[in-house]
Amino acid sequence: MPKLGSHRYGKARVRVLKILRNGETHTIKEIEVAALLKGDFETSYTAGDNSKVVPTDTIKNTINVLAKQHLGDEIELFAQILGKHFIDQYQQVRSAEITVDERAWQRLQIDDEPHPHAFQRGSDARVFTRVRCDANSCVVRSGIRGLVVLKSTESGFEGYPKCDFTTLRETADRILATSFTGTWTYAKTPGDYSSANAAILAAMLRVFATRYSPSAQTTLFQMGEAALASCAEICRLELAMPNKHCLLIDLSPFGLTNNNEVFVPIEEPHGQIEAIIERDD
Amino acid sequence: MPKLGSHRYGKARVRVLKILRNGETHTIKEIEVAALLKGDFETSYTAGDNSKVVPTDTIKNTINVLAKQHLGDEIELFAQILGKHFIDQYQQVRSAEITVDERAWQRLQIDDEPHPHAFQRGSDARVFTRVRCDANSCVVRSGIRGLVVLKSTESGFEGYPKCDFTTLRETADRILATSFTGTWTYAKTPGDYSSANAAILAAMLRVFATRYSPSAQTTLFQMGEAALASCAEICRLELAMPNKHCLLIDLSPFGLTNNNEVFVPIEEPHGQIEAIIERDD
Amino acid sequence: MPKLGSHRYGKARVRVLKILRNGETHTIKEIEVAALLKGDFETSYTAGDNSKVVPTDTIKNTINVLAKQHLGDEIELFAQILGKHFIDQYQQVRSAEITVDERAWQRLQIDDEPHPHAFQRGSDARVFTRVRCDANSCVVRSGIRGLVVLKSTESGFEGYPKCDFTTLRETADRILATSFTGTWTYAKTPGDYSSANAAILAAMLRVFATRYSPSAQTTLFQMGEAALASCAEICRLELAMPNKHCLLIDLSPFGLTNNNEVFVPIEEPHGQIEAIIERDD
Amino acid sequence: MPKLGSHRYGKARVRVLKILRNGETHTIKEIEVAALLKGDFETSYTAGDNSKVVPTDTIKNTINVLAKQHLGDEIELFAQILGKHFIDQYQQVRSAEITVDERAWQRLQIDDEPHPHAFQRGSDARVFTRVRCDANSCVVRSGIRGLVVLKSTESGFEGYPKCDFTTLRETADRILATSFTGTWTYAKTPGDYSSANAAILAAMLRVFATRYSPSAQTTLFQMGEAALASCAEICRLELAMPNKHCLLIDLSPFGLTNNNEVFVPIEEPHGQIEAIIERDD
Repeated sequence: MPKLGSHRYGKARVRVLKILRNGETHTIKEIEVAALLKGDFETSYTAGDNSKVVPTDTIKNTINVLAKQHLGDEIELFAQILGKHFIDQYQQVRSAEITVDERAWQRLQIDDEPHPHAFQRGSDARVFTRVRCDANSCVVRSGIRGLVVLKSTESGFEGYPKCDFTTLRETADRILATSFTGTWTYAKTPGDYSSANAAILAAMLRVFATRYSPSAQTTLFQMGEAALASCAEICRLELAMPNKHCLLIDLSPFGLTNNNEVFVPIEEPHGQIEAIIERDD
Repeated sequence: MPKLGSHRYGKARVRVLKILRNGETHTIKEIEVAALLKGDFETSYTAGDNSKVVPTDTIKNTINVLAKQHLGDEIELFAQILGKHFIDQYQQVRSAEITVDERAWQRLQIDDEPHPHAFQRGSDARVFTRVRCDANSCVVRSGIRGLVVLKSTESGFEGYPKCDFTTLRETADRILATSFTGTWTYAKTPGDYSSANAAILAAMLRVFATRYSPSAQTTLFQMGEAALASCAEICRLELAMPNKHCLLIDLSPFGLTNNNEVFVPIEEPHGQIEAIIERDD
Repeated sequence: MPKLGSHRYGKARVRVLKILRNGETHTIKEIEVAALLKGDFETSYTAGDNSKVVPTDTIKNTINVLAKQHLGDEIELFAQILGKHFIDQYQQVRSAEITVDERAWQRLQIDDEPHPHAFQRGSDARVFTRVRCDANSCVVRSGIRGLVVLKSTESGFEGYPKCDFTTLRETADRILATSFTGTWTYAKTPGDYSSANAAILAAMLRVFATRYSPSAQTTLFQMGEAALASCAEICRLELAMPNKHCLLIDLSPFGLTNNNEVFVPIEEPHGQIEAIIERDD
Repeated sequence: MPKLGSHRYGKARVRVLKILRNGETHTIKEIEVAALLKGDFETSYTAGDNSKVVPTDTIKNTINVLAKQHLGDEIELFAQILGKHFIDQYQQVRSAEITVDERAWQRLQIDDEPHPHAFQRGSDARVFTRVRCDANSCVVRSGIRGLVVLKSTESGFEGYPKCDFTTLRETADRILATSFTGTWTYAKTPGDYSSANAAILAAMLRVFATRYSPSAQTTLFQMGEAALASCAEICRLELAMPNKHCLLIDLSPFGLTNNNEVFVPIEEPHGQIEAIIERDD
């Protein structure tokens, strides 16, 4: 007899753009929300019974209404309001996972002055928060995904084991580039999430930029260490560094030497390094 | 003090296209491989020690060499060979997770005859396998992702709870469309994976097409039931149905009635239904 | 003094999915429409005068309404109805260019029988039509874009000029793969567009599959010749063959020979071959 | 008899990343190049004769070698060097069209100081140049594509014609957002291309931000006027403004008023406005 294991449902890619007004000065907040619910929904799978299924269309409407009422500067606060709403409003919902991605808009500078209501889309890196709420609490994680960073020197890879399938050459000077993704878990509520997130990101980028990288692994771990040191309220980070390889172009057929000058950036294949770094206490 | 939690690394998006030859008749096998290793790699993170780190470039070379030597009709067999290779070859590797996606190529029909060496790219749906090997065993999961299917009637959604945020109308006749993803776990080795996978997929599509759908949830569960019934060797399925909503176009401003004739397909937002269905024994 | 040169405007990516019903048997027609208008719109640019600007929102509504009323099997007929509507309805419109892309849906086979209302998304290749209408006439062009085809032998490239920057080796046996795009212009109205398009495509694929290819250029031209021969009503084709390169993997570092067995398919860079083939009379 | 019309071929998506060194300070130049050649290549189409066909692989090698030797700050200079090389080197080449896209990298700020060798990927907007060279001259066009800008007020759309298919409401306060693409043609060589391009872009953004927009058409034309005024060396602009619609969310079912606060950004459909603005002398 088949049985139902874990299950969840909800609405994803719900987009909202809100204009926050402070007198004549506008700020753009553009988000993409996913809300996934767990709870007493077994019979919707096994018995065709929809009597407890909050429609995903209602979930979308809820995101829109609460965005109008509550979306402000910090997506972490909005995500918690959303998560608690689903828990409080519907008895059958046991837990709600709310993910809010933010798309960056930068204020245009016009004649060296910040303009009050004109903006330019920022980089493709996305800050996000993922909040898991149940009847008793909300766990807040925040992060950034797809942050493409590159250092053009002070990175190498040496001392690795060789075998029959090894063709890579050791080097003490290569490009290190990655589309970095990091998620950190808040054990306590920080003064404000924006400042905490900014401090964490700055600490990680400082390590990336300023310390010699003997491997992506070492750099990843050092970035996690620095993040933990930069913000007392976080307890754990999940970090991923898909390498964006830049291959040195072989110019020897043309009688030229390529001293780390020209490279081919490739999208595939890519190395993948993933680790969790936690406080040990 | 920070400590390292779980970690893994490897190479992803390693693409190989192989020509399988049977006399004058060729078959195209195009795959994309990810190989992720776990094991005794802590010091690469914490001490800048690369002495155990099999380079991801070597992982890529290994995939290429083993593809030349062993890639045949069934990606499940190739993935197991790859996984065991990493376990057997490198003492520091404790487990290897190998994912092999396949891109479909269809033989061209020329004047109603199958051509021996000309092909057309198939649909974007990808069959795949994910194999997890350690020193003792390999667990094989297979599946399909991004299979876009649609039924133009025999689907509805009624009897759901209404609240202040409900605007959806009940219907007993709507389009059900989804970009379906399913993964099934083999508890035993089947006669051959290709036939087993084909039977599982056929069983699920038969349910999707022929049974009235009172909700995506019910259809998802019934598809899982049918899959388990179709193949004794699998014990568990993970299924996901992101709805591809088709919105009925409101033609009333133009004095027209739209009896389920014209719709706007939208990419976002989308409903998301996920469940695990297992044997209960 | 700045002056306005040529200009046009309209709505693009208007998507409609229509269910065509023949008793219990449904057919899915999914299209994406772009409608671009030229005409007496100068003052909307130069004088802030919107009095002649048919809103792009109205253009979208028009596509929806006419899709409900007129969209049938042949996108060429629908595109002409749309184009003529804009010319007839609005005096200020001098010409209308209507592009209709079609997304393929294939009927599901259930227990070897075609199912009346369940479908699977087809390949990513898109058939399309582009119709340009003015007060007197409509020019119809049809085509296919992104048709990915591959032949695993019977292709080579030899006899090309060598220079200091040449590293490519001559070969009489390589893979030829392309994401083919072809557009043909109808000089006369064919019996029906579907049959004409099918004959043209079949003629081109027959050449691709069955004739030895000494270069993409030659194959492109021969495909155009065959297309013209297959359909008396067309007078001109624009063909483009971006190569999808498959690089032979060098296995010599591993003591292995690679006799055209394993390749790396790459997305970038790609060769690009474009030509127009016309009747000479 | 079929005949060959216009034709061209070459290599596209050739990517190069170059490190420019100024002492310890590095700058990243990442480009993607397409080089398309026209000339005496008829027989490669019609007679299987490759004796004049510079292989696209050689074209790629040429881009790599010349990037090593000549790629500097200004992509316009590099594109001209490339174009002239093909003209000078191969008698059969009559014209060469070189497109160079640049991907933006921003120097990381670490502790408020610009770091000498660490960078972050910038926005997705791409600056580019397209140079067409023949034996006598090079025509240089430069531009930007995919620059997503938004103004949250000071835009409206009123006074347009109404018909049976009109449902849009007039408004004097809406969001105007676009993924802007502009290309300008240099009639003379400017002092330097970077400064000229920056001035042109700044002039256009000033108009976008600071002038009330009665329609995308008007704003487009005014941006073109300002661009011509900002740089005496350009003679012509091609501008395109695909609208990125932000739809006002209807909150009336929930008893709420939405005073231009929350919107749904949609990717499709989109308005499309295109025009050429030229000097009239």
